[in-house]
Amino acid sequence: MPLPFLTNAQAPLTNEVETVNEHGVRGVASIPAERPLTVYVDRRELVTLMTLGAHPEWLVLGFLRNQRLVHSLDEIASITVDWDVEAAAVKTRRGIAKFKERTAKRVVTTGCGQGSVFGGMMDEVDSIRLPEGKIAQSQLYAIVDAIRVKETTYKSAGSVHGCALFECTKADGANMLLFVEDVGRHNAIDTIAGWMWLQQADMPTHDKVFYTTGRLTSEMIIKSAQMGVPIVISRSGITQMGQRIAQQLGLCAIGRATGKHFLCYAGADRLILQPELADPKLRTVA
Amino acid sequence: MPLPFLTNAQAPLTNEVETVNEHGVRGVASIPAERPLTVYVDRRELVTLMTLGAHPEWLVLGFLRNQRLVHSLDEIASITVDWDVEAAAVKTRRGIAKFKERTAKRVVTTGCGQGSVFGGMMDEVDSIRLPEGKIAQSQLYAIVDAIRVKETTYKSAGSVHGCALFECTKADGANMLLFVEDVGRHNAIDTIAGWMWLQQADMPTHDKVFYTTGRLTSEMIIKSAQMGVPIVISRSGITQMGQRIAQQLGLCAIGRATGKHFLCYAGADRLILQPELADPKLRTVA
Repeated sequence: MPLPFLTNAQAPLTNEVETVNEHGVRGVASIPAERPLTVYVDRRELVTLMTLGAHPEWLVLGFLRNQRLVHSLDEIASITVDWDVEAAAVKTRRGIAKFKERTAKRVVTTGCGQGSVFGGMMDEVDSIRLPEGKIAQSQLYAIVDAIRVKETTYKSAGSVHGCALFECTKADGANMLLFVEDVGRHNAIDTIAGWMWLQQADMPTHDKVFYTTGRLTSEMIIKSAQMGVPIVISRSGITQMGQRIAQQLGLCAIGRATGKHFLCYAGADRLILQPELADPKLRTVA
Repeated sequence: MPLPFLTNAQAPLTNEVETVNEHGVRGVASIPAERPLTVYVDRRELVTLMTLGAHPEWLVLGFLRNQRLVHSLDEIASITVDWDVEAAAVKTRRGIAKFKERTAKRVVTTGCGQGSVFGGMMDEVDSIRLPEGKIAQSQLYAIVDAIRVKETTYKSAGSVHGCALFECTKADGANMLLFVEDVGRHNAIDTIAGWMWLQQADMPTHDKVFYTTGRLTSEMIIKSAQMGVPIVISRSGITQMGQRIAQQLGLCAIGRATGKHFLCYAGADRLILQPELADPKLRTVA
């Protein structure tokens, strides 16, 4: 299958701004970049994404995939990002059928960043069948630890969400395949979706785990499920729709994951508990 | 001026779900409710908002106002929320001119929650003139403290954003007029906008201050400015577009406000520094 041609238009991720603090002292702080990127599909304007700009081509690819506007990688001929005009030009090989209809319905959701889901995503939930796949408590701890030591834009500038894809093939370890940050966390997960698509069409997903710094909203759960990833971990909590959809899908949703603590909100049958690894001092924490 | 008729359809704010923790102990956790609310204007579908459901009528009113779909309160005859059908029916007195055109353009932004801004909001920034208005460091500390002691859904269930409107008439105090939480922080600020509109058309805003638990994104800054509130405080940071627009508007944007620390990112001329109130031990913190 021919891969699409992609530019590699990474932009600087942080900016310095002047500040004044509570002592009246002037200083300089690093803040995350935030750039508008207007996506055109075959010269028709689709959407403007506000992004950090780390991997704009993967972001656009993942956005098209997660919005179900494109079903196969070979539909895309090229994605050309030009920051001078703040535009991503997508060229398809055969056009997108019913483009106007399929982008007409708008749902404003809870999530950060890509808060706009074009209609019909919820309709799809019923048709998703997730692969087998479990996670051991030791693997979960390895993931939390890998995130903890990661050097990030968040650490230097704050105000971004991070998202990572892990592969859990070893019994007590986890391999970080990709780590993406963006001003919107849905941009981060879309970027991962785009990257996954470029790797190989038949990449197995039963052994993959998503990690996000943001809340487990319905959108995060659905996007993970759409990509066939059956386990999602967050250091934040979960919303009601997120929990309900995870339960319905049989997706393992683990929140509040910091240090040795976590709460599994749904799909606990995918979690191989090893309570002997937990911190006995935290025994009373709910 | 006739006020619109509003229902008062508050819904339960939290739900209990079963969990399992790292000790293998089963428990029950409170999570925030998250309900779809589809807004119909004169029977035409406008948008579906995902909301906690605390003040759905104010939310819808503020959404219409902040999207500039409605310019005066007397355009609205009624807002009727019915959770059984997850719908808010808005009845206008004279219809909304060019409804279809004005809701056609879509920008997916950084913010949580209402991430979809109908086109043209940025065009308006240039025309906004903010009122005079300053904040003393003592007032800022009073606001941070009032938020700290507030009993919240966040404390009981996590995963929501809070937003508050303060009035600073006393030299070293601040009066909390309204505190709103929602699964999306743009819902929270829209709810405050709706409430402000209902109070009085000519409510002075030079002495008002917004507080948000979320990041200072471009949308948060613009929405505050649209309501004439010249000072915004957050315990989080700021994004590049947020900082740039605040600077352009002369809006005072203060982030990282916890305890006695804060960073002013823009509009520092509105901040009356009282460094003698700062914690001298934190002198080295940037």
